[in-house]
Parts: sequence; structure tokens; C-alpha cells
Amino acid sequence: MVQNATTGARGSSVVTDETHRLIASDKVEGTAVYSPSGERIGEVYNFMVDKRSGRVAYAVMSFGGFLGIGQKYHPIPWQVLTYDTDLSGYVIDLDKETLKSAPSFAREEAPDWGSREWETHIHDYYRVPLYEGSF
Amino acid sequence: MVQNATTGARGSSVVTDETHRLIASDKVEGTAVYSPSGERIGEVYNFMVDKRSGRVAYAVMSFGGFLGIGQKYHPIPWQVLTYDTDLSGYVIDLDKETLKSAPSFAREEAPDWGSREWETHIHDYYRVPLYEGSF
Repeated sequence: MVQNATTGARGSSVVTDETHRLIASDKVEGTAVYSPSGERIGEVYNFMVDKRSGRVAYAVMSFGGFLGIGQKYHPIPWQVLTYDTDLSGYVIDLDKETLKSAPSFAREEAPDWGSREWETHIHDYYRVPLYEGSF
Repeated sequence: MVQNATTGARGSSVVTDETHRLIASDKVEGTAVYSPSGERIGEVYNFMVDKRSGRVAYAVMSFGGFLGIGQKYHPIPWQVLTYDTDLSGYVIDLDKETLKSAPSFAREEAPDWGSREWETHIHDYYRVPLYEGSF
């Protein structure tokens, strides 16, 4: 049970568990994201939690790059991701081609999370309303 | 910008950002938890997300131990944690002494997340109702 000191207590523990209803935050991170045809288009890098409501607002999907260089990050409203138990990953109605026009930012760019314009842009793209109490 | 291959793209990125409203999942993980008197009683290990509602159900606080050995995990309903900007951490109405009687599990134990009895026990302890749609 000795853990690697640099990675901490992450990864293999029973604590990072999942039930039919609940999933651990560090299990969502790293989960694959697929197009409807089953093409792997990226993975969940992390997700953004609304501090007041405790609701997950966005999953941030990372795509491409190598060791973080050239990687693109796509914020995706949580409600457009569907978990597929067969694929053991999330499915979203996008393919690699349309991903190019989806809202994204590069590693060196700071996304403007506090901006209504930026978040409206994301929600308009995915055609879902801004989440409750967002602004 | 070269990242450590074992830890991946975690840690120093602008992606792991925070605004007045949103916080990145991997920024919540590792955040200190304090008693009302300002005593540090642990840190957030991870948190459990309700897959259907996208709501954070529990923060799992880790306490004590060394490199995961002897560590105790305390599931805490999200709504009883208050973020304190001065402390840069969460505050909960517990001290180290009362923590001994709070619901917890050891590293070797699998918490019974799916069980109504276990979750009712947690919510009763913290005197908050079971969250909406939980069972």
C-alpha cells in the first residue's frame, strides 16, 4: 500500500470509487470522450464546479498535443455529456472535424471564466441554456 | 512548459483556475479544511459527484497518516463546507477531537456509497437532509 510520494495517494485506492449514482472527482478526470460513432476525441482534463450551488458547470476536455505541448482545451457544458457504460467514457455529439470550430483555449491562454460573453459563447455553441444562477 | 510525464499536465496550468464563482476540480482536491477556530484538520482528498444531477454530493477529507498509511477519510456533505477566502480553505464545524466520532473509513476499507444506511448515517451526523434525488 506504499504510495509514490510525488503522485500522493491518487489512483489505485478504493476511495476513487464509483457506484451507479456517484463518481469520484479524480475518476472523472482522465475519462475518455467519444464521438457518437465511437471515435475517441479526447479526455476529461478537469471540470469546473460552481462554488455556490455545488453543481458541475463544465467538463474541460483536453485534445491532442504531447505532454501538454500543443494541447487544446474544450470546455463542455456538463449536461451535454452522456456517460456510456459500454465505452466506459463520455459521449458527445461532436467529431474531430467539428471540434476545430468548438470553443477552446490553448495551454498558454487563460480562459475568461468570469466573463458572461465567453460562457454564453460556449453555451450557444452546444445549444444549451446557461445553467441556473450562472449570472 | 515541459510537464512531468507521470503527473501529466496537472498542477501549474492556467487551466486549473478559479474565479469568484467557479473552481477547477483539481484545485478543490488538496485544499485545506479548518475548524472554526482556524485549526487545520485535514484536506480535501477528492469529492463525489452525483452523475445524474451533476451535483457535488460529498467532499472526502483525508486526515493524518503518512503517504496514505494510517490515513482516515471523512465524507462530508458538500453543503456543510464553507469556503473562507482569508484561510484559502474550507471551514467546517468540527475540531480534531470530534473528528474521531465522525463517519470515516480507512484506506483499506471500501465505503458503501450505494447504501442508504451509510449515506443516512453521514447526513444525520452533520444534521443536513439527504440531498435531492439521492434515493
